[in-house]
Amino acid sequence: MIIPVIIAGGTGTRMWPASRRALPKQFAPLLGGNTLFQDTLMRLSGERFDAPCVISNEECRFIARDQMGAVGIHDARHIVEPLSRNTAAAVLTAALAHQSQPDAVMLISPADHVIRDTAAFEAALDVAMPRAEAGEVVCFGVIPTHPSTAYGYLQVDRGSDASVQTVAEFVEKPDLATATELLGRGHSLWNAGLFMMRVDTALNAFRTHAPDLMAPCEAALSLGGEDLGFHRLSRDAFKRCRAIAFDRAVMEKLPKCTAVSLDCGWADLGSWSALRDHQVDTPGGNALLGEVEAIECRNSLLKSTNPDMALVGLGLDGIVAIATDDAVLVADASRSEEVGKAIEVLNARSAPQAEEFPRCHRPWGYYETLSLGARFQVKRIVVHPGQKLSLQSHVHRAEHWIVVEGSALVTVGEEEKLVTENESTYIPLGAVHRLENPGKLPLALIEVQSGCYLGEDDITRYEDIYARDAEEEVA
Amino acid sequence: MIIPVIIAGGTGTRMWPASRRALPKQFAPLLGGNTLFQDTLMRLSGERFDAPCVISNEECRFIARDQMGAVGIHDARHIVEPLSRNTAAAVLTAALAHQSQPDAVMLISPADHVIRDTAAFEAALDVAMPRAEAGEVVCFGVIPTHPSTAYGYLQVDRGSDASVQTVAEFVEKPDLATATELLGRGHSLWNAGLFMMRVDTALNAFRTHAPDLMAPCEAALSLGGEDLGFHRLSRDAFKRCRAIAFDRAVMEKLPKCTAVSLDCGWADLGSWSALRDHQVDTPGGNALLGEVEAIECRNSLLKSTNPDMALVGLGLDGIVAIATDDAVLVADASRSEEVGKAIEVLNARSAPQAEEFPRCHRPWGYYETLSLGARFQVKRIVVHPGQKLSLQSHVHRAEHWIVVEGSALVTVGEEEKLVTENESTYIPLGAVHRLENPGKLPLALIEVQSGCYLGEDDITRYEDIYARDAEEEVA
Repeated sequence: MIIPVIIAGGTGTRMWPASRRALPKQFAPLLGGNTLFQDTLMRLSGERFDAPCVISNEECRFIARDQMGAVGIHDARHIVEPLSRNTAAAVLTAALAHQSQPDAVMLISPADHVIRDTAAFEAALDVAMPRAEAGEVVCFGVIPTHPSTAYGYLQVDRGSDASVQTVAEFVEKPDLATATELLGRGHSLWNAGLFMMRVDTALNAFRTHAPDLMAPCEAALSLGGEDLGFHRLSRDAFKRCRAIAFDRAVMEKLPKCTAVSLDCGWADLGSWSALRDHQVDTPGGNALLGEVEAIECRNSLLKSTNPDMALVGLGLDGIVAIATDDAVLVADASRSEEVGKAIEVLNARSAPQAEEFPRCHRPWGYYETLSLGARFQVKRIVVHPGQKLSLQSHVHRAEHWIVVEGSALVTVGEEEKLVTENESTYIPLGAVHRLENPGKLPLALIEVQSGCYLGEDDITRYEDIYARDAEEEVA
Repeated sequence: MIIPVIIAGGTGTRMWPASRRALPKQFAPLLGGNTLFQDTLMRLSGERFDAPCVISNEECRFIARDQMGAVGIHDARHIVEPLSRNTAAAVLTAALAHQSQPDAVMLISPADHVIRDTAAFEAALDVAMPRAEAGEVVCFGVIPTHPSTAYGYLQVDRGSDASVQTVAEFVEKPDLATATELLGRGHSLWNAGLFMMRVDTALNAFRTHAPDLMAPCEAALSLGGEDLGFHRLSRDAFKRCRAIAFDRAVMEKLPKCTAVSLDCGWADLGSWSALRDHQVDTPGGNALLGEVEAIECRNSLLKSTNPDMALVGLGLDGIVAIATDDAVLVADASRSEEVGKAIEVLNARSAPQAEEFPRCHRPWGYYETLSLGARFQVKRIVVHPGQKLSLQSHVHRAEHWIVVEGSALVTVGEEEKLVTENESTYIPLGAVHRLENPGKLPLALIEVQSGCYLGEDDITRYEDIYARDAEEEVA
């Protein structure tokens, strides 16, 4: 049995506007259907796998949980990082969390890569498994198809078995000349960021090569605690960790490291043009995702994330166009790695589209604004079964709730009542109230707020089952 | 005093997705702020002008009236064409409507052109006025800046006065070679579609050159009738008119026609690239409209019609990108005249974006859908002061109304009540009800519908102050 350790703490914004700080790449539905995080979970589930260990940041913990639930995974060990410390601390924390099973084998995997050929991937795991069980550190190397400057390389020694080789050197993302030279020399693989080793092998490697990380990671785990099914790391302890990549801190320093070749349609989708190249599916070299139409276009990526938003390309060549509910990016494909500039200019004018997402995930479900006027706001609110919002009141706004799916248990002052589909209720300004979904199905309601100030921070919270920090903005 | 006759019946869709069949070019806010129709009205108002005569089609009559009201014009004579018969019939109908003032001077003007320099335009009117008063037919010719193939030309004879010349020939939109030759020869002006003449001059010209139009247009006016302030033409009579342009039917056949030169920043915005060329306002040759950002772009048009929709261009050259609430067009600027292809492909899959618009104008105001789910729909409804919806009921849906601005007089069954800001009411399935704005300010409400069928055609109408046809879909 392999323990999948899924590193999902990244804040990938290279796929803006479909990914943002509030919805990193791994959690965005980039290819339609499941997210890359969900695809990763599914790929690493089944009879050869134990329950996964997922590491996410704090802001995205409920998104991650919702997305796991949506693909039927309810038994994950979910570690929450209070701040980002790169991958070395994440891998070590996962190993420490499993130290009671020293000879269990972990598969460390990014959450935001794609693999087309699952059978080939599993065959590679079969090759790696006995090596890992025998105490080796195994990394996976993708057979390169072109001299990419977007990936690190594994320079390997020629071995007797073509599929298992020894890593001679880790090469950082090279320039084009170096990448071309590496490819010419042969024996170079792309570093896929996938690693397999036993728990004790990992702990020993850290003790030897990155000993300074041991104490703060151990403290982060032991001083942290269970909270609503998450294992939250201690912020004070975790922030003392050195922020360094696992490759840098450990892999490059190992005296011996085994590389297993991967030929499985792997890609890390590091930019929109990379996604286009991975997804190309029409004769003209276009990649089309969602409600889009390409009229006499070539080499272009057209993507609409909303089925009610039609995107039409006309006579385009080498253009990337991404339409979302509140932002559209149109870029020359060769410039799509510079999407950070879009985020910068939007941040400079405090546009919410730079980092926020229209749908806000909360411990109890999510909400999205449908309409915002001068003195009113209309939201759609979805509450998961069994969840409830905090007991709260507002100084500046009254609220109307109309249940459109499921049933709501509504508390207003001393009164408690069940409001079901097509019924409504009214929360006067100042009234202490609570919303709860007592049912087995999701509760969806339309909230119409009215008042002179409608900010999320007009809230006084009296009781909250989610023990949220006062600083967290929560509806 | 000049009577402005504003021809606003066009169905211009060349600016899709900002213009559509349901919101033709002249009524779309193309440049931000006022629409071209409103700009035309404002240009043709003031002390030298009488109340305007506006000719629109039936579908757009309430949009036209709303847009007139928004710029303070309440005294227009508004003729409604039950079907399209091109401009000759429209001009003749306007002349017939004013035949009691035979020596009044009309200025025939399209509703969808831009004129930058109003003072120069007015100076040209001053030159034309005495000619028109003396019984001449005056047309206005724009001094060409390039050999355009998008406009018709007036070939003029050299006159003693450079600003007043005689038209020798009307030239249809030429090919590039002909346009270049015309420009080289000199004495060519673009036909701006603007004409000035007395009412009796127009009637005589029609009697002589297009006599077949007289009887059906006279019948269309006399058999039509006043309806809520509109003068509706008789459908049966009007459909017998030959569909032909005024230039073709009359102007080209006149033995003598005077041309006044116009040098006033005129453009007809016939395509997105024409709009870009007219609007260019940045060093890189970009035209930017609305919440847009151009990062290292050149020769591109970026336009967002919604302040909550951010559009970002990155590294573009010669691209047109137009973002609206429900559709985005991204086109090579040199292909922007082929936007009809986008409408075709969307029509082929019955996408509403091809022809419809999210905001639906009705006699009493307008509505737009904010959210549409499996068993619910959320709409924002605005009712103009003094207006009321029909007395109606629905078989399949119940409705919740929450007033967010103004006051509503609501009738449900026998009961009538006033619902004011922040109050709500409920219309059970099957209940006969009516919504009315008894106030002096607009009434805005949020409607939440629930039920198994939410189509606009689930309506039984018992009484309607707007005398609408049964076939009209009306909320």
